[in-house]
Amino acid sequence: MKVSILMGSISDKGISEKVTKIFDKFGVEYETRVISAHRTPYKAVEFAENAEANGTEVIIAIAGKAAHLAGVLAGVTPLPVIGIPAKSSTMDGLDSLLSVVQMPKGVPVATVAIDGGENGGLLAVQMLSIKYPELREKFKEYKKEMEKEVEKIDYDLTQQA
Amino acid sequence: MKVSILMGSISDKGISEKVTKIFDKFGVEYETRVISAHRTPYKAVEFAENAEANGTEVIIAIAGKAAHLAGVLAGVTPLPVIGIPAKSSTMDGLDSLLSVVQMPKGVPVATVAIDGGENGGLLAVQMLSIKYPELREKFKEYKKEMEKEVEKIDYDLTQQA
Amino acid sequence: MKVSILMGSISDKGISEKVTKIFDKFGVEYETRVISAHRTPYKAVEFAENAEANGTEVIIAIAGKAAHLAGVLAGVTPLPVIGIPAKSSTMDGLDSLLSVVQMPKGVPVATVAIDGGENGGLLAVQMLSIKYPELREKFKEYKKEMEKEVEKIDYDLTQQA
Amino acid sequence: MKVSILMGSISDKGISEKVTKIFDKFGVEYETRVISAHRTPYKAVEFAENAEANGTEVIIAIAGKAAHLAGVLAGVTPLPVIGIPAKSSTMDGLDSLLSVVQMPKGVPVATVAIDGGENGGLLAVQMLSIKYPELREKFKEYKKEMEKEVEKIDYDLTQQA
Amino acid sequence: MKVSILMGSISDKGISEKVTKIFDKFGVEYETRVISAHRTPYKAVEFAENAEANGTEVIIAIAGKAAHLAGVLAGVTPLPVIGIPAKSSTMDGLDSLLSVVQMPKGVPVATVAIDGGENGGLLAVQMLSIKYPELREKFKEYKKEMEKEVEKIDYDLTQQA
Amino acid sequence: MKVSILMGSISDKGISEKVTKIFDKFGVEYETRVISAHRTPYKAVEFAENAEANGTEVIIAIAGKAAHLAGVLAGVTPLPVIGIPAKSSTMDGLDSLLSVVQMPKGVPVATVAIDGGENGGLLAVQMLSIKYPELREKFKEYKKEMEKEVEKIDYDLTQQA
Amino acid sequence: MKVSILMGSISDKGISEKVTKIFDKFGVEYETRVISAHRTPYKAVEFAENAEANGTEVIIAIAGKAAHLAGVLAGVTPLPVIGIPAKSSTMDGLDSLLSVVQMPKGVPVATVAIDGGENGGLLAVQMLSIKYPELREKFKEYKKEMEKEVEKIDYDLTQQA
Amino acid sequence: MKVSILMGSISDKGISEKVTKIFDKFGVEYETRVISAHRTPYKAVEFAENAEANGTEVIIAIAGKAAHLAGVLAGVTPLPVIGIPAKSSTMDGLDSLLSVVQMPKGVPVATVAIDGGENGGLLAVQMLSIKYPELREKFKEYKKEMEKEVEKIDYDLTQQA
Repeated sequence: MKVSILMGSISDKGISEKVTKIFDKFGVEYETRVISAHRTPYKAVEFAENAEANGTEVIIAIAGKAAHLAGVLAGVTPLPVIGIPAKSSTMDGLDSLLSVVQMPKGVPVATVAIDGGENGGLLAVQMLSIKYPELREKFKEYKKEMEKEVEKIDYDLTQQA
Repeated sequence: MKVSILMGSISDKGISEKVTKIFDKFGVEYETRVISAHRTPYKAVEFAENAEANGTEVIIAIAGKAAHLAGVLAGVTPLPVIGIPAKSSTMDGLDSLLSVVQMPKGVPVATVAIDGGENGGLLAVQMLSIKYPELREKFKEYKKEMEKEVEKIDYDLTQQA
Repeated sequence: MKVSILMGSISDKGISEKVTKIFDKFGVEYETRVISAHRTPYKAVEFAENAEANGTEVIIAIAGKAAHLAGVLAGVTPLPVIGIPAKSSTMDGLDSLLSVVQMPKGVPVATVAIDGGENGGLLAVQMLSIKYPELREKFKEYKKEMEKEVEKIDYDLTQQA
Repeated sequence: MKVSILMGSISDKGISEKVTKIFDKFGVEYETRVISAHRTPYKAVEFAENAEANGTEVIIAIAGKAAHLAGVLAGVTPLPVIGIPAKSSTMDGLDSLLSVVQMPKGVPVATVAIDGGENGGLLAVQMLSIKYPELREKFKEYKKEMEKEVEKIDYDLTQQA
Repeated sequence: MKVSILMGSISDKGISEKVTKIFDKFGVEYETRVISAHRTPYKAVEFAENAEANGTEVIIAIAGKAAHLAGVLAGVTPLPVIGIPAKSSTMDGLDSLLSVVQMPKGVPVATVAIDGGENGGLLAVQMLSIKYPELREKFKEYKKEMEKEVEKIDYDLTQQA
Repeated sequence: MKVSILMGSISDKGISEKVTKIFDKFGVEYETRVISAHRTPYKAVEFAENAEANGTEVIIAIAGKAAHLAGVLAGVTPLPVIGIPAKSSTMDGLDSLLSVVQMPKGVPVATVAIDGGENGGLLAVQMLSIKYPELREKFKEYKKEMEKEVEKIDYDLTQQA
Repeated sequence: MKVSILMGSISDKGISEKVTKIFDKFGVEYETRVISAHRTPYKAVEFAENAEANGTEVIIAIAGKAAHLAGVLAGVTPLPVIGIPAKSSTMDGLDSLLSVVQMPKGVPVATVAIDGGENGGLLAVQMLSIKYPELREKFKEYKKEMEKEVEKIDYDLTQQA
Repeated sequence: MKVSILMGSISDKGISEKVTKIFDKFGVEYETRVISAHRTPYKAVEFAENAEANGTEVIIAIAGKAAHLAGVLAGVTPLPVIGIPAKSSTMDGLDSLLSVVQMPKGVPVATVAIDGGENGGLLAVQMLSIKYPELREKFKEYKKEMEKEVEKIDYDLTQQA
């Protein structure tokens, strides 16, 4: 089970690290790449073309502004593509979000929240867990941990009072 | 391989039918339900709780306005949840889109375009094809057909000229 | 007369403290909890289910992004639910606002301004004062104080000139 | 238990009728008025001033565009004020929504969805039910009916399949 | 010739000072007041009622969020009312702008740019100059100065090159 | 007392007719012109240059999309310029509104609501009434009529009940 | 001088016909193609790769929703690319506009108004006229005609009065 | 080959310097001016009138808020005009973007991203390269460099791993 994480620009590294932290936790193999739909279009197409053969099972694309990376990859590969819209310096991420999520009929991109690195990673885990039961179990534990964490905060707060 | 399609309201039926048309084409088994996060909250939780055990592998949730259905299901189930924001009578679908996609850390919803029934279905197919190679092959054919269709239109147009 | 204040995340504490300052002033009993619609969905449902029996008369829910907490509680409890949308790091609070206010027919959430902790508290006081005349009187005094405060500022300003 | 429903313009009558349908169902006494914050400002202030003494327990204000009615009433009366933003011919209701909900500290308006007549009525019922237990019971039944209705639709749909 | 400048809150003082700087320059008499449509509604109505008799010829209202001050004054007084929307902590001023400019038929507010203190002042000068020719002359000089200033910057820039 | 009404395009005629109806009622002399800031820029500048000398006291500019007409005129003339943003086929009038209202420091445009022909006319009347007392009196009567009209509707409604 | 007009979908034909009407008028040679960045990605890349060699001097790309076509072409070709955002069924064209105009550093797209077919064509004419003086002359005449047309409408209107 | 860069205000200098850096790199001759459509309207018109005769081949206009500069120049000159919307203190640049891009039929402005100085410069280079083959070659090299830069970053990243 391998996920390929592509950023449109190295400035998106903060988001990709949120993704890889999730994958390290879940034991998902991954590669991280900087490939731009606009500045390295051939590499983007070539990457998408070969991704399946190279053993990639899910692609995550992180990009900002007129964020075309996820859509361009999804046009070429049959693999599921997760898009993480990155907030850029203006427009509060609305430009990225609409550029990623409003894909035309026939070519979906699975979009998560603006700057949502963890959720991009977790969605990949959920997709992979359709095939890999051990990931499903880990995800259930993750949900429980998360639940406990919130409950602990709630408990501490109510004890204080 | 089974997908559960949930609408928040029967008024979303037009969108769910775009989804089922895709599933009929791809031979994906599905069930279609009307379950509201707000009007039938217990049923929503119960459904999400039992979905995995009932053989569901992917959930698709269609809802409009303050569209919480996908998020509520994703809070309970470990299965991947696809959210299709439905355009309601005001706000041009922006309310639904933001309510579905802007999920907090830990609970992703795989969001597709507003009213994007076909893409919701195709994304489910792509997710399932991680496990089911026959779906992958069908999806590749689908992409080719789609490509040919566009090329045919292009050809006809250039011949006319 | 008791109000339950729920935050979706401890990061909303600043807003809940604006609420509790109001309640301390008005002598309204309250509890403050951290319960997430997405990370602790069972607790959220359970809380809503028991709120009336536990003596809660009004619920206040504070949440950001795809802010479903208020809506989820309102789906379960017959109590009035006040929603305070919290501004998160992107989208300037518009995502939270629309997720809280645009509730479907049948399940209202009484929404106040983005980050409007004081107004969430005051609205609860107004609701409770339907039943408790002493709160009505205190609220009238509060309005008068507020009026005087503004008039004092106005007076000082016009004296300066 | 009496609710006063104010519209800023007779063009909002469609929304006020959704409110009164709810009140007829719940046996809530009401009056319906056309009072404009801008065209009949004295009447608006006078109304708000006397509302409590006249036996009104909750005020509902319906207005569009730069919708000041709810806010103006809330500035004068200590009663809880519910604001229903009306969609006007441009801006898809966003202008009304922001004008109603974004009230400054000290003067809350309990805002419901754009054009949300039913929810405005139901929120009033919920507020009143803090004091009137019979309304609480009726509201619980309403919730159950609503639940059954959705379940019936779901049942019919699954039977068809 | 007298202009009354009203702020909804003392936090708008930065904007009112931009206005008064303009009036000091043009020799327009003015008063500055803090009167809130929501917190001191009677004062607001009373002010508007007496403004004409008190010798005010133009009113300027500065307010943020659900900015009703200008509209409330305009509902009462026959004087022209200039509205300056103030940017508050969320929504980037869009809420204020729409609350001020989208006034219903019959009650106009002359709206200038968000936080546009100088332009609010200059618009008042332009209105007054319909009656006072000396202000018209001063305004023409102001325009010329402004023109020269820009030309000076342009000249310096082109000389540098 | 003369007002010049300029439209950027003949398609804005519906709005200009709302303006002239107001002027006919108030006995304000006017001229109606079609002058485009983009298609007839010289005419626009020339018009603005000569407006004062030609006896115009207030200018009203109606335009849609990137609505520059009001701003361009205001750059040239010292007269007060009222801008009426026209809703075009896309963007719900938001583009026009922002293009008209967000003027830079030094060159105000008195902006009214999107498609707000009546209010554009009434604002001109209010401006002119600074100088012409008879218009002030007529405006007060207009306000009273408007008040009575709303009160009549209110009366009829309450009688029905 | 040749312009290649690409639509992402045959549903954009109405816009492309506005472009070709301009080209027919100006005597600009053109071809019209249907090539989708998402459904025929190879064709899009191939087209962009060969465009210069095939004698194309300017490319016009028309697309809606997450409109990547212009950006994808601009990533490959050194030719200037004009993007015309098409309004689709939701979001009023805002999604298309932001997807086309907000291109990252290094890969510009010359964006015109939503659904702005004529302006897309005219911009191509302006670009070509840098090289072809005869087009410059025709464009000047076009501007004059446009001016006369508006002046004729203005004349007729003022004569009527 | 000469480009004229106009800013509406010296505060836009940061953006104009991004443009000139591109021109220095490509050996494009340019002039930089501060000319305001609103504060120096005559200069703006005069500039546009003479630009062609003065040897300018492309105009770049940088402006914020109600950004009319590009549109005003485009109304006068037959030269292609590139508009760069500048983000001002409010509205996140949306006001500038819409004021620049939403031009009416007949008068296009080639709009690039908000604050997109480099892309404004590069678009001018692309336009000029229709006529000047040496610029086309330099642009191709620029694209290759950019590609290599991204590939270098990608290479370094993958080596690290």
